[in-house]
Amino acid sequence: MMLSQLQKRFQRIDQSKFFQSFVIAVIIISALTVGAHTYALHPSVELALDWMDSFITLFFLVELIIRYFASKGIKHFFSKGWNIFDTIIVLGSLYPAAGSTMLIARLLRIFRVLRLVSMIPELRLLVNSLLKAIPQMGYIALLMFVIFYIYAAIGSMLFAHINPVLWDDVSISMLTLFRIATFEDWTDIMYETMAVYKTSWIYYITFIFLTAFVFLNMMVGTILEIMTQEHQSAREKEAGNDALPATQGQVKALEKQIAALSQLLDQKDK
Amino acid sequence: MMLSQLQKRFQRIDQSKFFQSFVIAVIIISALTVGAHTYALHPSVELALDWMDSFITLFFLVELIIRYFASKGIKHFFSKGWNIFDTIIVLGSLYPAAGSTMLIARLLRIFRVLRLVSMIPELRLLVNSLLKAIPQMGYIALLMFVIFYIYAAIGSMLFAHINPVLWDDVSISMLTLFRIATFEDWTDIMYETMAVYKTSWIYYITFIFLTAFVFLNMMVGTILEIMTQEHQSAREKEAGNDALPATQGQVKALEKQIAALSQLLDQKDK
Amino acid sequence: MMLSQLQKRFQRIDQSKFFQSFVIAVIIISALTVGAHTYALHPSVELALDWMDSFITLFFLVELIIRYFASKGIKHFFSKGWNIFDTIIVLGSLYPAAGSTMLIARLLRIFRVLRLVSMIPELRLLVNSLLKAIPQMGYIALLMFVIFYIYAAIGSMLFAHINPVLWDDVSISMLTLFRIATFEDWTDIMYETMAVYKTSWIYYITFIFLTAFVFLNMMVGTILEIMTQEHQSAREKEAGNDALPATQGQVKALEKQIAALSQLLDQKDK
Amino acid sequence: MMLSQLQKRFQRIDQSKFFQSFVIAVIIISALTVGAHTYALHPSVELALDWMDSFITLFFLVELIIRYFASKGIKHFFSKGWNIFDTIIVLGSLYPAAGSTMLIARLLRIFRVLRLVSMIPELRLLVNSLLKAIPQMGYIALLMFVIFYIYAAIGSMLFAHINPVLWDDVSISMLTLFRIATFEDWTDIMYETMAVYKTSWIYYITFIFLTAFVFLNMMVGTILEIMTQEHQSAREKEAGNDALPATQGQVKALEKQIAALSQLLDQKDK
Repeated sequence: MMLSQLQKRFQRIDQSKFFQSFVIAVIIISALTVGAHTYALHPSVELALDWMDSFITLFFLVELIIRYFASKGIKHFFSKGWNIFDTIIVLGSLYPAAGSTMLIARLLRIFRVLRLVSMIPELRLLVNSLLKAIPQMGYIALLMFVIFYIYAAIGSMLFAHINPVLWDDVSISMLTLFRIATFEDWTDIMYETMAVYKTSWIYYITFIFLTAFVFLNMMVGTILEIMTQEHQSAREKEAGNDALPATQGQVKALEKQIAALSQLLDQKDK
Repeated sequence: MMLSQLQKRFQRIDQSKFFQSFVIAVIIISALTVGAHTYALHPSVELALDWMDSFITLFFLVELIIRYFASKGIKHFFSKGWNIFDTIIVLGSLYPAAGSTMLIARLLRIFRVLRLVSMIPELRLLVNSLLKAIPQMGYIALLMFVIFYIYAAIGSMLFAHINPVLWDDVSISMLTLFRIATFEDWTDIMYETMAVYKTSWIYYITFIFLTAFVFLNMMVGTILEIMTQEHQSAREKEAGNDALPATQGQVKALEKQIAALSQLLDQKDK
Repeated sequence: MMLSQLQKRFQRIDQSKFFQSFVIAVIIISALTVGAHTYALHPSVELALDWMDSFITLFFLVELIIRYFASKGIKHFFSKGWNIFDTIIVLGSLYPAAGSTMLIARLLRIFRVLRLVSMIPELRLLVNSLLKAIPQMGYIALLMFVIFYIYAAIGSMLFAHINPVLWDDVSISMLTLFRIATFEDWTDIMYETMAVYKTSWIYYITFIFLTAFVFLNMMVGTILEIMTQEHQSAREKEAGNDALPATQGQVKALEKQIAALSQLLDQKDK
Repeated sequence: MMLSQLQKRFQRIDQSKFFQSFVIAVIIISALTVGAHTYALHPSVELALDWMDSFITLFFLVELIIRYFASKGIKHFFSKGWNIFDTIIVLGSLYPAAGSTMLIARLLRIFRVLRLVSMIPELRLLVNSLLKAIPQMGYIALLMFVIFYIYAAIGSMLFAHINPVLWDDVSISMLTLFRIATFEDWTDIMYETMAVYKTSWIYYITFIFLTAFVFLNMMVGTILEIMTQEHQSAREKEAGNDALPATQGQVKALEKQIAALSQLLDQKDK
């Protein structure tokens, strides 16, 4: 009974606008603290930042505990992906920020900025819709990878002796091809191989056409498709069924109704 | 009574095609005047331009006063955003263009070109539709900023000792990352850090994927979405309700009507 | 009478598949001839090309005359934009290709390749749909120009003393800004001015956001919008009205019909 | 009879999930084998790779034979494009990988990675939808080619004496123009010709507008159009006709039905 009362109080804290705003403020301060460390600072400021950091770490831990006790139990708490996400980030930042592991600790603390995404509903929505696009984009990525791999293998076979820095093996060639796909000084690379193989421009032009043009467009298409679908389904939910366009099935049902009416009249006649 | 007559006269002036075309012409001349100052000119031409400038400033002031008196009072006048916009620009250009503040005065005068937007209805429509996209794009920008900040913090921690010009602190690193997002010589930056950390290409490739590809596409998607919505709502307004597709609700109403008819016939039978 | 018979014969020639294919073949040969001139050739080949060129010029003139006489008179002929287009190109290539005006004559002959567009219906369709987009894009271009002009004026005022090659006056600054909008070595330009004005990155970042991102997307949006509209109207034309979605107006008419029926039944009852 | 039993067994093998997964695994190993050859390896590893390669070649041949006998005869087998595709790739990799033709053999073996596309249905779907876009894009490509050709001819006539490496003849000029279309150091090329012809920026700006902006957008538009059409037709197939929006034709049929009903009632009256 007493525990349940405590739970209710925790829930009230967790859902209050003030508490949520305060958490967002602490996240932003946490981000600024991490950023401040990259500047050359006076030792006393550094010390203040370290104290600040300890407070933030503690606060996030307390906040997580409040949220946990406000939930309906361990299963319910971890059934939400964003809670798992928060827990990992908070536990990760418990890593001691001192001595030789300073750098790792600070790197882990950077990811606390990501908690902004889990705290602000609009950002959560955006990321969720991005995650939905991943399975559909997976196969496009695979197809892209196949093309990159084939071109990288050909490239490293033919051009390795011209410039080993760019074409020595398959993995280096793939990095070079990614560079070409972003149009980054790609003509320098082309002119270099054209000095040896005069027709090697075919290799570059076909590669650019296959990747940069066709496939990027496919990705854009997929993203647009998903976004349109989502917006439409949202609009449909909002409007309810009655606001949707009438279907052919409905009109057919009407036709049957009227036909039955006609028959009724006909029968009365006889 | 006399004042009201004056107001009507002002309204007639304000709404006349001739007056509006003349204002647009003065705006264009004003723009050319500002542009001309950037060329090396004969002192006499400079003097003529200064006189021209004074005339334009005066004309804009007079025009604003006419527009003000043509409106239905101070509240009504400033309820339109474009009027506030015009007032700020006109008052800003009253700043004296002489002596040590010459540069500031000229900079303020440049913005008078923006009055083209408030004078030409089609441009006003374009800018209005852009402004509508801002709230939806705000959260995308925030998400982008979070990603930039995290990568900038990581970058300045790991790469600051390699090239302080590019990675010294978080703010410089963010500028460097913006440069990478535009593909501007990004491989030079990558090759530099790969010389120290062999696997640092992961940092660049993931960053490019996260920003340039996925998020830019989201922005495109949002803009397209908004434009399509607007055009559709415009088309719907034009066509009136009767030209919209029939809804399922309407057909259901029809069904009820016919069912009632059937019942009527049935009752008559008995 | 005899003239009309001649006209019919001309029409038969003009509309025959063989004649049209032959014209397309001559256009392609004409293009190759122009291209061949850019290579270093043996004098005898040059001479052959010149003879070829004279033949092509004559052939195009004859073809134009056939097409003219096949038409229903001068007014009807020039009422079609593509006929005016062809006439200008053919007359332009009559310019003598010899002596000091050789270069101008050859430049004029290049445009004969454009006749491919007027001969192949699918290309004509593509270009027509592009031309339709021009009025809508005009205002976007104007808005872009205003932004470019303002930034160019600011740029030439502030940066002219840093690098006169890039920022000397408004027109040079606009070219520099166009370069920045294409991300071409824009950071070099930025770093140069940042050495003098530390915060000048704001100028570049805001410019890039305003132009490259927002406005390019607007253009894409407009083009897509127009294409979708066209395809839809084409589909609607194809399908006829009966395949369009039923409108609310139609269902309302149905409702009235059924209501009248009900009233009829009611009246009979009494 | 016995042959038919063998055929059934082959079909069972061909359609079993295990066999298909095994084939995909072999394809991936084959890809890694080809990639491994680009690294400097110990001779013993090289030998092992060669043995591996022989096994893979044999396996693919056996797999093709199984698939052939599982099919309903030679005509049916080659009626599917993907079977022809597989046959060509497998036969191509039979080329002996030894002696002076080593390089060609290895290049042919790279294309075995493409068999991933024919084995994974989702990739096959993606490639099929890309192939569908080709005819519509063909005319856009032709229009682009015409523009490139005209600009290349003009470029090589005017700029050949400035920089023969970039503008010597039509074909080299087209490569240079492709480079400009990708914004790759295009300003360097422009500044070079502007030193001789002051107004040559018009050439570059108009070219960039014509190609990069307008035409790329057309391509994006076409791809989106096709994708939307496909998704829609897929949705329509899924939903069946009854879920489609009611058409105007249907409602007209309804109207006639009700009108007939009214007439029936009228006639009864008399």
